[in-house]
Order: sequence, then structure tokens, then C-alpha cells
Amino acid sequence: MKVSQVGEFGLIHKLAGLVGRGHKASTPAWDNLVLGIGDDAAAWRNEPGLTLATTDCLIEGVHFTRTTIGWRDLGWKALAVNLSDIAAMGGSPRYALVTLALPADTEELAAEELYAGMAELANKHGVAIAGGDTSVAPAVLINLAVTGVAGEHLLTRSGARPGELVAVTGYPGMSAAGWRLLKEGRDFPSEASPLLTAFRRPVPRLAEGRILVESGVKTAIDVSDGLAADLGHICEASKAGAIVEVDRVPVHPTACTMFGAEAVQMALGGGEDYELLFTAPAEIITRVQEISACPVTVIGKMTGEHPGRVRLVEETGKSGHISGRGWQHFVSL
Amino acid sequence: MKVSQVGEFGLIHKLAGLVGRGHKASTPAWDNLVLGIGDDAAAWRNEPGLTLATTDCLIEGVHFTRTTIGWRDLGWKALAVNLSDIAAMGGSPRYALVTLALPADTEELAAEELYAGMAELANKHGVAIAGGDTSVAPAVLINLAVTGVAGEHLLTRSGARPGELVAVTGYPGMSAAGWRLLKEGRDFPSEASPLLTAFRRPVPRLAEGRILVESGVKTAIDVSDGLAADLGHICEASKAGAIVEVDRVPVHPTACTMFGAEAVQMALGGGEDYELLFTAPAEIITRVQEISACPVTVIGKMTGEHPGRVRLVEETGKSGHISGRGWQHFVSL
Repeated sequence: MKVSQVGEFGLIHKLAGLVGRGHKASTPAWDNLVLGIGDDAAAWRNEPGLTLATTDCLIEGVHFTRTTIGWRDLGWKALAVNLSDIAAMGGSPRYALVTLALPADTEELAAEELYAGMAELANKHGVAIAGGDTSVAPAVLINLAVTGVAGEHLLTRSGARPGELVAVTGYPGMSAAGWRLLKEGRDFPSEASPLLTAFRRPVPRLAEGRILVESGVKTAIDVSDGLAADLGHICEASKAGAIVEVDRVPVHPTACTMFGAEAVQMALGGGEDYELLFTAPAEIITRVQEISACPVTVIGKMTGEHPGRVRLVEETGKSGHISGRGWQHFVSL
Repeated sequence: MKVSQVGEFGLIHKLAGLVGRGHKASTPAWDNLVLGIGDDAAAWRNEPGLTLATTDCLIEGVHFTRTTIGWRDLGWKALAVNLSDIAAMGGSPRYALVTLALPADTEELAAEELYAGMAELANKHGVAIAGGDTSVAPAVLINLAVTGVAGEHLLTRSGARPGELVAVTGYPGMSAAGWRLLKEGRDFPSEASPLLTAFRRPVPRLAEGRILVESGVKTAIDVSDGLAADLGHICEASKAGAIVEVDRVPVHPTACTMFGAEAVQMALGGGEDYELLFTAPAEIITRVQEISACPVTVIGKMTGEHPGRVRLVEETGKSGHISGRGWQHFVSL
């Protein structure tokens, strides 16, 4: 059945059922929720500390196409990219508001699948989907606004100091590699699946963000525009420079096998990785590496030269500045 | 200059300047803001009481066209429709997160005008625009997520009881009348301007929402789908029926002059009014009428019959049920 046959209120009723409290375990978000989906606004009791809030949207034809991602994964990803922002502040997520805009001929089941994918990730992190808005639209659009809680010690972009090391979680570039395979639509071997998953179901580094805070890290960003560009954001906000040793940037073996030297470019500029990029003194990074379940790799250091700029250095001795302006919307690259 | 020439980061920088703290007066939102636009998430200190949160989007071709509303008014309206939800809970607004999706050939000045309109209304109510997301898109889309604060006593949809009176602020139907004039594109006399303004620059009834709470009202909704439909939402949530005396529904004189009997239909079913519709015992409504600066009109009463349904009664004695399902997205009416 199409959403045009179910109608807006019928659809909201169905979707609310999919993400409602139900038999979910007790979590701070659910326990403090006073009013969820179904009134003019959601209402909750505040927890001690600071409130965090972020918003991010995925638009058909811009961030995805219907052949590159399924509805369930799209729901997961729409929430994941927002949770990643909460992770990059060192916080814990709490509530999500969902704006879902769909063409009138969308199948109702598609919307249900999307919400099921979103609920799957929400439940993993105790997030309560507390409200939203639905509309017809010429293309699929999902916007989420997510809140979180944090203590007084936040991870920001502006705290990096010359002499600190630069490190990154996981393997940047995997998502860009997956996106490339999907866009080209070519047959890919089963080994490619981690790359496709990195694009379709990114994992927000929430546990790692909290480890950073507990270990005394002050500066972090999540890699959404691309590693070099996001390091550029840290440099601009911190009024410092950075040197990246290109040969130390961790490339996933599958990306390396399938794309060779291009995999390194993807790691530096691909974007949508949702890994955490952070700076700290060496001893703090060692502590993080000991505690963190996911790989943490040192890739360079902060400097006092060329404030706002990132310098890439290769083993061959070749080097170059990049402007720190990688992927950005509106600009044709 | 087009936004494609300015680029995403250049645009964000410009827009952030338009809505930043600047020389704004001290307000609870600005005073408690720890991190605004420019990091992965906004952060603020909590105030006592409950947090409210709502999200609403405006989409080109669905909610507006570029000939029916200018950029500045569009910015105002995108915030107003969200503030109206906070008003309908009896709260005070605090922070807004803005998702702005634009075709790449949009003029940068258009985006600036839009933000200026949003900032104009934000400043009136001490709202801090604390973050957002920007993207290219096939059509203009603005989504806002807005938070607010409230005490333990909220206005909800579910508190209406048989015997209570039903009242509404202002003149519903004005926005629908304005929208009709704009869509038809016909020449209209200067007297029509209140109708156009009602569509383009709706006024969120924030002061009135707080008066309702202080006066002891428990049940309210803002009129976005249409008066009868929104009363239907109260009836469903409260498991009660309602009778509306059609001849008591306040129609704006200009709408009456220009549209005659159709103006009454617009008042009942037009939508996008952002007036407050509420129920309460007679003595409480009298108190609200005495305090409120805007007109408050009793239009009917709640009953124990036909739970979930609204009955419209005319002076002639004619009556009929409506399903309470007025304007809804996805359905062709």
C-alpha cells in the first residue's frame, strides 16, 4: 500500500508503534520522557550536566540513491550520522526527533523498514525517538535532530595545541570505497562487504568518545567531510597547523586490495567515515589505545606553523598543503 | 553570487554571523549556551523544569512556492511554526537547530534573507539559533528543531473532559484565505494584506500559551491542520466528543468580505493558522479572556458522546459529523 493510501495520520500511528516504549528496557531517556510522539512537542525531565543537540539530514540524489542503500540501512544511517556528532563531543545520546519527507507513491512498508532500521540503532544506545514531522516531498529526505547529555568536560574542535599528536579511530576511507563500488554498480566479491557496510551502516563511536573524555582528551571531531578536511576544521578552530604523515594513515586491507593507491586518497578525502579524529599529548593517546576496543592510530602532529592549514607529508619526502576544505555542499568538485 | 560559488563552509560562516550572539540582550537561552554554531553539536546548561522539543519542516512545492512567499518571510515562518508547537504546550522557546537544503543555483543573498527573517523572530522571543546542517537539494527545504522549557504543568491534547467549553484565539482561516489569493495570483486590494501576512508571517501565540497554563487550562493544540481536524486530534487523545457551533466560529471581516460563506469553510478546515485551540471550564475561559490581549472566542463544548469525533452544528439546525481528519500529507483531497 502507498503512503498516499494510508494517509499522514495512519502512517504516523504505524511508525509511532514501531519506535514506542513497548517492552524496551529501562534507560535514562525512556525513564525521563514525560511526553513522546503524539502531542505538539515532546517533553522530558533534564538530567544533571549539559544538554547536547545536533541535526543532520540525508537527501535522495545527494547523500544516497535508492540503488545504493536499502530503507532499513537508510534509517540506521540517518540516526548514526547524528549519534556520531554526539560521540565527537564525548556525550551520550538521549532523544531523537525525525522529519520524514516522502514522495506520495512511496510504499508504506518502505517507511516502516526505515523506522525499523532507526529503531535498531536507537535501542542499542537507549535513544528514545520522541517526535517528528512527516510530509510529502519530491524526493526522499530524512532529517534527525538528536539530543544528548555530557559533563562539563566536552570534546571541542578548538582545543588543539602545537606538539600534540593527531590520531584517528578505525579505518577512514572505507565508506568512500563502498560508495564508489555501489555507484559503479559493478559486481563485487564478497570480501567487499565491509566497505559496503561502512557506507550503509556506519558505527557511531560513542564508547570511544567517552573514553576520550575519561582519558583527558580535549579536542575531537567526527570524520564526515573527509579526514584531511576535518583536521582542517580543527586547525581553523584551534588556530594551529597540522602535519599528517600520509604513510601512517590506516587503510583497510580490502580497500587497499581493491583500490590500491587510490585507497589512500579515499582515506584522506573520502568522507562519511564517522570515525573520531582527535589530538592529545602522546601519553594520553597511549592510554586511549590501551583502553579502546577499536584500533587507534597516530597519523601526525599539531604544529605552530601555518595556523589553520594541514600539511600532508609522504615518505618520499613529497609534501603539500591542503586548504582544509574537502567535501562541501553546493560546490562542484 | 550563487551558493555554489560561496561553498558550504563560506555560507555557514556568513549565516552564523547573521544569527550569532553579537550584541544581543541577555536572555536565558544566550546566557546558558556553552557552544553554538561551529562544533559537532551545540551545548547548553539546563534550566529547572522540563525540556520541550519539536520539529517541523517547510518544503517548496508542498508548503510554499517561490511566488507565494519571499525568503525573509520564509525564514520567519519556518521558525514560527515550531514556536507555535512550544506555545501549544505552554512553554517558552530556547534553542533552534536549522537544516537548510537549497538548489546549488540559489543566490547567496536569498539564504541570507531567509536567516535574517528567522533571526528577526528569534530575537523577539530570545531564541538562540545554536546549530544546523546545510545541503544541496533539488528543492528548497527548511527544517527546524526547537527546544523550550516548561514547568510541570503542560498543555496536552489528552486532558479534555465532557462539559468543558472549546475556545480559540484570533481568527482561524486567515492563512488559508491568504494562501488562496496568492495561489490564484489575482490582483488583490490593499485590505487583503492581513490575510497575506497571516500566511507568510504567522504569529506564534507564546504569551497566550503561558496565560493558558497560568489560568489552569490543561488542554490545547495549535491549529495547523485546520480547526475541525485539530479539535479532532484533541477528541481522539482525550477520548471525548466535541460540538462546534459553526456560527460562533470567528471569521475575520476581510476574509468574510472577500470569500463570503467560503470564509467559514476556511476557518473550519483551512489550516496553518497557528492559533491556539483549547478546552476548559467556563470560568477559566472567562479568566483567559480577561487577561489575553488577543481575542478568545468560545466556539463549542466537549461532550461524552461519540468519543473521538467532532460534530458541527449550524444555526439552521443542520449538523454533521466530521472524522477529525482534515488536511493530512500524502492524501490527495
